[in-house]
Amino acid sequence: MANSIKIGLLGLGTVGSGVVKIIENHQDKLMHQVGCPVEVQKVLVKDLSKARGVDIPSEKLTTNVEDILHNPDVDVVIEVMGGIEHTRDYILTALRNKKHVVTANKDLMALYGSELLTVASESGCDLFYEASVAGGIPILRSLVEGLASDRITKMMGIVNGTTNFILTKMMNEGSAYEEVLKEAQDLGYAESDPTADVEGLDAARKMAILSTLGFSMKIDLDDVRVQGITNVTEEDLQYSKQLGYTMKLIGYAHRDGENVEVSVEPTLLANAHPLASVNDEYNAVYVYGEAVGETMFYGPGAGSLPTATAVVSDLVGVMKNMRLGVNGKSAVTPQYPKQLKEAKDVYSKYFLRIHVKDQVGAFATLTSLFSERGVSFEKIIQLPVKNSELAEIVVVTHKSSLKDYEEIVQQLRDLSIVESVKSSYRVEGVGEV
Amino acid sequence: MANSIKIGLLGLGTVGSGVVKIIENHQDKLMHQVGCPVEVQKVLVKDLSKARGVDIPSEKLTTNVEDILHNPDVDVVIEVMGGIEHTRDYILTALRNKKHVVTANKDLMALYGSELLTVASESGCDLFYEASVAGGIPILRSLVEGLASDRITKMMGIVNGTTNFILTKMMNEGSAYEEVLKEAQDLGYAESDPTADVEGLDAARKMAILSTLGFSMKIDLDDVRVQGITNVTEEDLQYSKQLGYTMKLIGYAHRDGENVEVSVEPTLLANAHPLASVNDEYNAVYVYGEAVGETMFYGPGAGSLPTATAVVSDLVGVMKNMRLGVNGKSAVTPQYPKQLKEAKDVYSKYFLRIHVKDQVGAFATLTSLFSERGVSFEKIIQLPVKNSELAEIVVVTHKSSLKDYEEIVQQLRDLSIVESVKSSYRVEGVGEV
Repeated sequence: MANSIKIGLLGLGTVGSGVVKIIENHQDKLMHQVGCPVEVQKVLVKDLSKARGVDIPSEKLTTNVEDILHNPDVDVVIEVMGGIEHTRDYILTALRNKKHVVTANKDLMALYGSELLTVASESGCDLFYEASVAGGIPILRSLVEGLASDRITKMMGIVNGTTNFILTKMMNEGSAYEEVLKEAQDLGYAESDPTADVEGLDAARKMAILSTLGFSMKIDLDDVRVQGITNVTEEDLQYSKQLGYTMKLIGYAHRDGENVEVSVEPTLLANAHPLASVNDEYNAVYVYGEAVGETMFYGPGAGSLPTATAVVSDLVGVMKNMRLGVNGKSAVTPQYPKQLKEAKDVYSKYFLRIHVKDQVGAFATLTSLFSERGVSFEKIIQLPVKNSELAEIVVVTHKSSLKDYEEIVQQLRDLSIVESVKSSYRVEGVGEV
Repeated sequence: MANSIKIGLLGLGTVGSGVVKIIENHQDKLMHQVGCPVEVQKVLVKDLSKARGVDIPSEKLTTNVEDILHNPDVDVVIEVMGGIEHTRDYILTALRNKKHVVTANKDLMALYGSELLTVASESGCDLFYEASVAGGIPILRSLVEGLASDRITKMMGIVNGTTNFILTKMMNEGSAYEEVLKEAQDLGYAESDPTADVEGLDAARKMAILSTLGFSMKIDLDDVRVQGITNVTEEDLQYSKQLGYTMKLIGYAHRDGENVEVSVEPTLLANAHPLASVNDEYNAVYVYGEAVGETMFYGPGAGSLPTATAVVSDLVGVMKNMRLGVNGKSAVTPQYPKQLKEAKDVYSKYFLRIHVKDQVGAFATLTSLFSERGVSFEKIIQLPVKNSELAEIVVVTHKSSLKDYEEIVQQLRDLSIVESVKSSYRVEGVGEV
């Protein structure tokens, strides 16, 4: 083993500069664990002249990725530049050149994780990606090692800090979505183009990674049903509160026998659920195992140093493996072929808010649509809509199959007495009021 | 590597039978991860004829520990019998006979962990003990691996399910300690002799293990300041509520520069703290790292299957190491010499409830004791005590050193106007009311 372990860093943005800081500040601890110093050898940047928040000698910076991928001194490549196609090529080249890789790139792992892990294994290299899901929370390691003996049947995650910040603010302050989004952007919690976050895509990528590991089954991004938070209104949140629920963007992964469902959608969560009190930009993953029962892992889902902690902890794992000469042997290939539940087998409770014409028999007409399919109500609220001839009806159903529920909603839209279907969400647990 | 991995199990009680069940029920998953079957070869029991909740062929049972410790077929010894001196001898013998060991024994690890880990390392054997702290929560692995790159400065744990159950019930139902203890015993959440739990000793053992790992410093059981919950009254809990706090038995470990303090005591925790909503028999460990910030790990702290999950997950770790030929190399010896804070350097806020004679100037006399030492008040409540000439005074102080605070309390006891000091607790955070 070399006198020091040398790192090639791809990217020196928020996470990259965090990685440099942690390697500097915690050098003692790293050395104690690994037995030799760790050194950042080369850093790929876009612009050599840009000012950085960290102190890196200019000769270590490069704009040429070959200086890292083909550098015989570099032992480990840390990828924190983001992006997909280029980055995939870089990581493949690094692995084929026998360099271990640590990445924080969820987009890449959700799309090409399986391919990259195979190449890593063939090259005898480690490819670790703890930071790709839930930032500083060591959730992937907990799933793969800490709960290695258990059969995980359910995972629920608040895995996107931006949307959790927005929903928490909307819920606590009664503010409108656009207003809070603006505030989140000003605070740096949301990007100037927030689409991937608010449309649920970012969370979906993380859920694909989580469920692939937790269920030992290759789940692709396309397998995740996704609904974002852009249509959530103050009225919906008012009703949530009133009914004893908290609205969260929940990544939901459930295994029933051999069949799996994975979704990301705004969900009314009973206030007593451990995830309901995860607020602001925090993340948490709730894991249910057959033997262990309920567990939850909570922490910062993003940010420079939290994410960098996960990256450098992965680096420690790589370095320990180097010392023992066992790199490239820890990845476990999926045990099961993919089997997704059909809509008729996906069961949930639902919250539905509709506006109907306030006329005799309207409510009976509605309820018969539900009862024909055997779907009953847990809660019902009916109120007149101000300054109109309409009534607002809010129901929380008992469990229904997704298939039945979607058909009911379609039929409701077609009814002449229904003015509009305002909103519809999954419901988890029983709200106590 | 053998055709199957063979286990010698010491103990077939609650956790032992859980281990047998998980190895049976999750054989597929274990085999997929490890590449060969896992088999329970021999089980040490006290009484061969006792009925068991699990199906074990009688020829596998033995009352003679030598059948396991000196059995050439046994690869891994799982110790779930409890006890200290005998058990220590058994584990030492097993390790010297080149058998890997997984234990759930916190009493043993808190007292002899350092010795046992040294012998394991010398013998090239693994000694894993995830189940010894917080049952099903993979907290030790998270500290050692998931947060490997960070510098942990604070850990707070609800690490005893019995006392958390009791305090939750007392808090929610306004019941008295003895009454709730009785209920906990009837439900099997408390033992017939509850001393180790309610006096805080069990939690102290776990905090010694946690802080040894988290601070990389050998912390002994005697280094932990301990106060149990037996003197907590309904009145104290009423005031907690009124002031915006929840009472929990908190294991507190804090590092300030190179110096460390570790304690277990009933603590008034601000309701907004993530640990404040950990209820009933659940456990959770809150970890603060310099880089990662706030994280929390939540789950079942005890019980047959949850604890067995941690045991068998450790077993998977041992078996993966066997496959790679790297057993006995993962333990990291403490990096720092032990340096405990003195009482003058331990700072906290405190809740104090006293009864004083209701006479002119009493309150001024009291407050001067505090102000002489520079300790000021965050909150004060004074009320007459019914049917007496006494007044009840409750204060929450701002931060004070433990030394100053203890001297103040001693001087209060000596004052003629003070009838009695009713209760005194640590306070964490700011209660919002």
